[in-house]
Amino acid sequence: MAATQRRTLADVLRTHARTRPDALAFADPAGDVRLTWSQAAARVHRCAQALRAAGVGPGDRVLWLGQNSFRLQELLLACCEIGARFCPANWRQQPDEIAFVIDDLEPAVVVAQREEIGDTVRAGRDRARHACRWLEHDTGEYEDFVAAADPVDPDADAPDGEPLLLVYTAAFDGRPNAAMLSSRALVAQGLLMAPWQGIDHTSVFMNSGPLFHIGTFMPNLSAFVSGGANVFVRRSDGELLCHAIDRYRCTGGFVVGPMVDAMVEANADGRHDLSSFRGRRGNPAFDAQVRPDDSPWGRRPGGYGQTEVTGMATFALLGAGGAGAHGRPSPLVDLRVVDPDDREVAPGETGEIVVRGVTVMNGYWNRPALDAERARDGWHHTNDLGRFEADGTFTFVGPKARMLKSGAENIYPVEVENCLRLHPAVADCAVIGVPDDTWVQSVKAIVVRAPGADVTAEEIVEHCRARIASYKKPRSVEFVDELPRRNGQVDYEALDRRFGGGGYPGGTTRSV
Amino acid sequence: MAATQRRTLADVLRTHARTRPDALAFADPAGDVRLTWSQAAARVHRCAQALRAAGVGPGDRVLWLGQNSFRLQELLLACCEIGARFCPANWRQQPDEIAFVIDDLEPAVVVAQREEIGDTVRAGRDRARHACRWLEHDTGEYEDFVAAADPVDPDADAPDGEPLLLVYTAAFDGRPNAAMLSSRALVAQGLLMAPWQGIDHTSVFMNSGPLFHIGTFMPNLSAFVSGGANVFVRRSDGELLCHAIDRYRCTGGFVVGPMVDAMVEANADGRHDLSSFRGRRGNPAFDAQVRPDDSPWGRRPGGYGQTEVTGMATFALLGAGGAGAHGRPSPLVDLRVVDPDDREVAPGETGEIVVRGVTVMNGYWNRPALDAERARDGWHHTNDLGRFEADGTFTFVGPKARMLKSGAENIYPVEVENCLRLHPAVADCAVIGVPDDTWVQSVKAIVVRAPGADVTAEEIVEHCRARIASYKKPRSVEFVDELPRRNGQVDYEALDRRFGGGGYPGGTTRSV
Repeated sequence: MAATQRRTLADVLRTHARTRPDALAFADPAGDVRLTWSQAAARVHRCAQALRAAGVGPGDRVLWLGQNSFRLQELLLACCEIGARFCPANWRQQPDEIAFVIDDLEPAVVVAQREEIGDTVRAGRDRARHACRWLEHDTGEYEDFVAAADPVDPDADAPDGEPLLLVYTAAFDGRPNAAMLSSRALVAQGLLMAPWQGIDHTSVFMNSGPLFHIGTFMPNLSAFVSGGANVFVRRSDGELLCHAIDRYRCTGGFVVGPMVDAMVEANADGRHDLSSFRGRRGNPAFDAQVRPDDSPWGRRPGGYGQTEVTGMATFALLGAGGAGAHGRPSPLVDLRVVDPDDREVAPGETGEIVVRGVTVMNGYWNRPALDAERARDGWHHTNDLGRFEADGTFTFVGPKARMLKSGAENIYPVEVENCLRLHPAVADCAVIGVPDDTWVQSVKAIVVRAPGADVTAEEIVEHCRARIASYKKPRSVEFVDELPRRNGQVDYEALDRRFGGGGYPGGTTRSV
Repeated sequence: MAATQRRTLADVLRTHARTRPDALAFADPAGDVRLTWSQAAARVHRCAQALRAAGVGPGDRVLWLGQNSFRLQELLLACCEIGARFCPANWRQQPDEIAFVIDDLEPAVVVAQREEIGDTVRAGRDRARHACRWLEHDTGEYEDFVAAADPVDPDADAPDGEPLLLVYTAAFDGRPNAAMLSSRALVAQGLLMAPWQGIDHTSVFMNSGPLFHIGTFMPNLSAFVSGGANVFVRRSDGELLCHAIDRYRCTGGFVVGPMVDAMVEANADGRHDLSSFRGRRGNPAFDAQVRPDDSPWGRRPGGYGQTEVTGMATFALLGAGGAGAHGRPSPLVDLRVVDPDDREVAPGETGEIVVRGVTVMNGYWNRPALDAERARDGWHHTNDLGRFEADGTFTFVGPKARMLKSGAENIYPVEVENCLRLHPAVADCAVIGVPDDTWVQSVKAIVVRAPGADVTAEEIVEHCRARIASYKKPRSVEFVDELPRRNGQVDYEALDRRFGGGGYPGGTTRSV
């Protein structure tokens, strides 16, 4: 790629700073921060210079251990301007999980949050082997760090095909892996989806889902590349969301399921004006306060995707009237369904989904063997199953490896099982998902007690609560004498039948 | 770029063949050809295999010397599948111009047309030094060539950042240069512009402007990447256009100025149903037969661009209400205005437009010195002048070098002057443009006769007609004793004042 062809995420910021200098770029209710594009660019340049002065160089990692904030996006862009890489980690993780991320990523700088999660983050830091520079973003420390630098654009971006954003996902083997996404992928996905989502320079997107998930990043990027505004809400809380919509006239946001109920409750007295928000959610009290979303995505949302392909790889909106449930492939990728020997299967047959195209990741951080396996034959192997219908439309069937879904979170049973096995009273175990009206699924553990051991369901749950993110812990525990097995493998279908398992992702649109 | 991230123009064809197998891809009134996506893919694979068998390898060029045809697009895609490069040349050129292109490009295969232009093409071939395989596309020769090969996808695409489409342009120094555009640029521009033009999989785009211009290729690509259909009309002829719209229910097309009048005349008896066509043109008789175009582009078309940046680099539709005439930069590029020392100038000041981004060309074919000069400092130097307004919107001011515009054609005065100087009776000369109600501008030559020579205006025009494309020849000639000069350079402004010159591009939207 010639220098004249570079188009990084920071280049988009530079264009907006020149061509929409006084329009709103970022807003944050924490401190009621409002930054125009020219102000945002100046802050990003300062931040980049400060990181550079702190020794952050090309390819180095900066880790974010905090909730949503305009500083998260600012750090992403600052990393871009100096060729570094940025990882917003899951703040809901427990200390051991945080320590794993720190030691896996070996960041040059960690920017952490004290409010709400400070103790957990500190415990993770204490358990990690890797040492580096730490800054707290919400205590003035980070602000001082940025303010001391000059607002001069370093313009030292890596080529736009190099990794920029690292997102942990895919804990199929029990440990998460960070998918590395390039500016090229992020800009392309944002541009593609903007008009489909009705996003343009007049849009104000509320980042209400967590930015350690690609699901929130997709509309964030669409607003960003279009010159619209992004508003950062610390966490999904009904009152915070209503306040943000009202104060910044948000036109959209990642708001699903229980959050809608929480917003209705928070705004029972109607003191927040939600009329700028586009997108009804099937809750009459909510829908009466907002506008319809008549964008193509609003009318027919979803599709199939995963973090490793920058989110959506197929769009339901491209398959209206077709036989498949998940539309057609994104114009940015080709998608095939193959058998275990990587031969394409016929329409109607189920096989592994493989993807090739602009939005495919650059591999996982620090996982060369896994990368080679996933990228074999020149195609990204998704570990997911799907099929093409006779009319060319596509249906996502489900994960090749088992996965549960609770709220918007992917839960890998193997990860919970690994945690359960650490308990001395657990001889054997298996984890299934059971349907849950509120959370789609909830986690159920099936446990075989060790000979002579005595342990209660409550103790099992508490054991997990202390070690893995709260949403992953079992909500119920069943004790059995032994697990059903076939060919040595746990027979999860038998467990599902016996204990009411079901509701696994794949039956419906997979959100990413 | 990893293999898993490839997204070439042929990859788009592959996706459509899998996911829209029975939908219309290409149609051509010549022979009433209709190809579905699966049929189109099979033909392209055959064509690619045939080219390969004829010795065309990675980086080799295939030259098209014909009018619009579905075979033009098929050859472009076939070249993509074997890593070759495709150039559709201007069929309106004279033999010497054609010979120049042949010797400059040194193609491995030339696919030419016998109808209408056969004699001229043959004369060009005879004058060229470079010899290679020639095929006629409209005599059965090319069809036999393709039919003999197997419809097996070679899948030997070059990386998507490599040159694929070569378009001759920019004859500022008197000879044209071929801008090399990559799959990456072509796919990105097509995807970006599709929703803005209201183009999706239901669209049927009539390729009525010549495909040796990027102006027609932009909407062609938008329809192509969206899974819509492209219809190829041999040349801009009122009857042919009306017939194509009616027969294939075309929803859009490149139809401007005199062509609209020609269509109205051709359809005076109303036997062609034009009601599928979207886009009124200010001609009441035409507008009464078609639908309004309510797309963002339809409501506010144009912007600034050039072939070297795959067409549009700014879009008027991004600057509605702003001070600048040409909107804001494409989200695919950054655009600056710089002084002769490549320093960015302040808003309100005019300077050279420089561009960096996804749609910037890979350089000119076979012009390393020119490439180095145009790409200095990591930015593509457009040779055009522009300025940013205080509100961040942009105005294109005009070419740095002088250029005229007649119909949709760019005419470089230096090229016409070079031709005039070949006449023994011409001692000195200059070419200006004078406003023309039908063609925007027409070419006027100012000639100083050689001592004792006697030559008429008609002889001068005939001299040019025989040597350069007809639209470039002077429509009027003035004789003077000497040309006005300043610092040794011809004073074109004085000539414009004296002979009524004006209407140069830049006053209005620059079409590309």
